[in-house]
Amino acid sequence: MQPEDVLPRLRELGFAEDHAELLADHFLDSEQRGKRGHGLARVDWLATLPDLDPTARPAKTAEYAGFEQWDGRGALGYLTLGAICSSLEEKPPWPARVIVARDCFPTGALGYWVRWLAEAGLLALLTATSPPRLPPPNGGPPLVGTTPLAIGIPDENGAVVVDVSMGKVTYGDVLAGLAKPEELVAFGGDQSHKAFALALGLQALVESCVVGGFGAFLVVVAPETGSETVERARDLGIRLPGDR
Amino acid sequence: MQPEDVLPRLRELGFAEDHAELLADHFLDSEQRGKRGHGLARVDWLATLPDLDPTARPAKTAEYAGFEQWDGRGALGYLTLGAICSSLEEKPPWPARVIVARDCFPTGALGYWVRWLAEAGLLALLTATSPPRLPPPNGGPPLVGTTPLAIGIPDENGAVVVDVSMGKVTYGDVLAGLAKPEELVAFGGDQSHKAFALALGLQALVESCVVGGFGAFLVVVAPETGSETVERARDLGIRLPGDR
Repeated sequence: MQPEDVLPRLRELGFAEDHAELLADHFLDSEQRGKRGHGLARVDWLATLPDLDPTARPAKTAEYAGFEQWDGRGALGYLTLGAICSSLEEKPPWPARVIVARDCFPTGALGYWVRWLAEAGLLALLTATSPPRLPPPNGGPPLVGTTPLAIGIPDENGAVVVDVSMGKVTYGDVLAGLAKPEELVAFGGDQSHKAFALALGLQALVESCVVGGFGAFLVVVAPETGSETVERARDLGIRLPGDR
Repeated sequence: MQPEDVLPRLRELGFAEDHAELLADHFLDSEQRGKRGHGLARVDWLATLPDLDPTARPAKTAEYAGFEQWDGRGALGYLTLGAICSSLEEKPPWPARVIVARDCFPTGALGYWVRWLAEAGLLALLTATSPPRLPPPNGGPPLVGTTPLAIGIPDENGAVVVDVSMGKVTYGDVLAGLAKPEELVAFGGDQSHKAFALALGLQALVESCVVGGFGAFLVVVAPETGSETVERARDLGIRLPGDR
């Protein structure tokens, strides 16, 4: 798959132009940032999904003060998160909003979505569920997904984008042939119980907010001020997560 | 310090009865759960704080739909988080609320506060800032605190309580003589950049929500349903974070 083939291939799969462009941007951006597991390898993978419905569109299904609920309605999770980010960018919440999405899978590189929000001036914290891949540190069957936590911080020198999978490797890396399936354990070596606990807590949090299937949990906040730590790191010339 | 001496000592330091009881419960609970760095060693440590004001009381300073802002007003962070939990337990938010607290330090074992909320039926995600202790993985001065992330999940068989510090050891452990200062690095060994990134992202998130000083960031959500993963783990007999 070459970069220039991504958009035509997505159109060929039956996606409408807005969806094809969003998907292409996510895959190309991921590939370019070295997140190859979320990159071009995923385009052909889409075609293998048994229940791919390229015409499905996500929708906001409930809205209360400080809270929104979305439903993928059969669309790819990428498209549900894209619709949420687009809606938040158009009407930025103040001071804060919690957004949950059901039927939201796959969600790709979570950093992509929080970067979008951070560049629109919003603090964002995002996690999402996925199939169980990580066994408990003391052994047993896979119990939790790699359950990444992504945090986006607006900054005038470029958004700070943290995107940490709780796995030693990602499933995307396995899919792209960059890692072995047996490397899919919680990261941290002799402290892998910490990453496993984070994955479990985040996964249980999402599951408790959405009935059935995979989901996403997002918090967005209008910043009150800048981060002293980010400023200090820039002064010290320290490379921050999300920097090119 | 013996358990029976904690409450009298706190009264002696000048705390009102409600505050002394809350502090004693936090310290005794932490000690009992093996979190000795947040336990009895902290009682005498309180007396050494140069600006300890035992009469200070935290207050809610702003409230909007889905959002609250609190200010420690010179009180210990434990007391600010206690006042927040007590207020949320009394009037549980629905569907969700983001709460930020300024002048909120020290915050103790974050698991204690999310357990309180989970036992009151609320999903909770909590983080807090503290002095820089962890250097970047590639070297440099300490840039971020141990910045724990705590997640509480209500469950009929006992709340699931995740409380993960991003440090290989906690500062409390160093204070209690259980670890050496040079062990205060991000956890994860050759993947410590992941825990460091999480600490940085969480710290920048809190800092961006509160002007000046240390702060806390809390999200509470009324659960929509139970967690399948927690249920599955219980069925498999897997010990979950927070289990005794």
